[in-house]
Amino acid sequence: MDRAEPPDGAARRRLASGRDDLLVREEPLLLVVHGQPLLTMRTPGRDEDLALGFLLGEGIVAGAGDIAAMQAVAGDAEAQRADELRVTLHREPDALVRSRLARTHEVRSSCGVCGLTSAPAILDGTPPLLPGVPRLAAARLHELAAALRARQALFAATGGCHGALVAGADGTELGFGEDVGRHNALDKAIGQAARRGAELARAVAVLSGRAGFDLVLKCLRVRIPVVASVSAPSALAFDLCEAAGATLVGFVRDGRHEVYCGADRLLA
Amino acid sequence: MDRAEPPDGAARRRLASGRDDLLVREEPLLLVVHGQPLLTMRTPGRDEDLALGFLLGEGIVAGAGDIAAMQAVAGDAEAQRADELRVTLHREPDALVRSRLARTHEVRSSCGVCGLTSAPAILDGTPPLLPGVPRLAAARLHELAAALRARQALFAATGGCHGALVAGADGTELGFGEDVGRHNALDKAIGQAARRGAELARAVAVLSGRAGFDLVLKCLRVRIPVVASVSAPSALAFDLCEAAGATLVGFVRDGRHEVYCGADRLLA
Repeated sequence: MDRAEPPDGAARRRLASGRDDLLVREEPLLLVVHGQPLLTMRTPGRDEDLALGFLLGEGIVAGAGDIAAMQAVAGDAEAQRADELRVTLHREPDALVRSRLARTHEVRSSCGVCGLTSAPAILDGTPPLLPGVPRLAAARLHELAAALRARQALFAATGGCHGALVAGADGTELGFGEDVGRHNALDKAIGQAARRGAELARAVAVLSGRAGFDLVLKCLRVRIPVVASVSAPSALAFDLCEAAGATLVGFVRDGRHEVYCGADRLLA
Repeated sequence: MDRAEPPDGAARRRLASGRDDLLVREEPLLLVVHGQPLLTMRTPGRDEDLALGFLLGEGIVAGAGDIAAMQAVAGDAEAQRADELRVTLHREPDALVRSRLARTHEVRSSCGVCGLTSAPAILDGTPPLLPGVPRLAAARLHELAAALRARQALFAATGGCHGALVAGADGTELGFGEDVGRHNALDKAIGQAARRGAELARAVAVLSGRAGFDLVLKCLRVRIPVVASVSAPSALAFDLCEAAGATLVGFVRDGRHEVYCGADRLLA
């Protein structure tokens, strides 16, 4: 029985067999942006990266510099109060940002961008991608997928979480995230990359799971032009990437992959 | 190139290579319950099962008999109008049900039941499970996991969706669902089982992915006492099952499994 401190994001539990095991933590976070509350489940740790990535992906901030302060308030299990992260922006949100904030309250990860059904409509307002940039060998995507797996310490400990990597075309890691929620893992990776001042418009995102429309949309909103997943994309994720001129690669595993669209960014 | 009709829930797309491929559909559904709208993404098909399972899992209806009518209204892509399903209950929702309906509007799958942090608080109001019922051999769980895999035609075609099975302890299938969303797959399986009048308090749920707190909570709310997953549970999912006296089994694959809690329902 390992009595060492569990890794960040994991909790020890006693199983039916009497053996102890590490399970991924899944706990609520109340994110409050200029007074607007949004409650989500996440794996604790790196809430600031999570918040920044989320706000970027929702179009509520344009960069890390838009955020004046983040204040974490620890929850109280006895009082049934969740952890809280209070975000203050440099400028009072304008009407557009207010409407986006209100929208996040309802949509989070499960909604069709207020019922829009076509890719161009969903992409409305999303900044354009740089055409033909970056260019990289498909072999690089396999290296990045391997790098992502090697980084997933919490997954190695618990088997119960997803990971995401944001990297440069030369293979440099720009951001990384692990979380019980797929979206949160990507939010953390994007938030970290943005905080470091990475040039997302020339970056690649690698996902440990399927590429649903919501994950792809987060990438497109921060102008990441290449999305690679070890699993399948959905039809809507494909439609969004095709309409945006992004590169979507799926099933990056076992030395193989499938290029869904945007093959011009991939060197032969 | 296969020109046959794609299976329900899949759509054909032309890949960069010029080859056609089937991708799982991911499209919005506006669920309207007594005038209260809830927008979600789902794989089209079996929206009625999805709605029934969802309403049961949220504690908004107690059984299929509470629903007076469901009316499907096809969406209109040109007008950017999502598919709609209008649900009418036999009785006007009372205050409790209205508050639960309002809650679904915000929480759906991503929220911590309004910020509650402890398992007993989250379980408050959840009906009790039958102790020691059902009893089944662990081998049955492996059979059911294999049966689930065999049922996942949409996954076989697209590689991009999750599946859930609700079954009796004797192995009889009671309900099945596949969907791009994990929660929807379980909602469809529960909805189908409920529509068939299955005794959920003696049933087993088998999940194709991880057992997050939200999936486990859906099972507990409809009194399913045994949850088996081919992957890991989260710490909160474990806490909920332990507090409710449910049986939670993870990593049911390759002839092995891990009993997390509730071993009394498993025959040696």
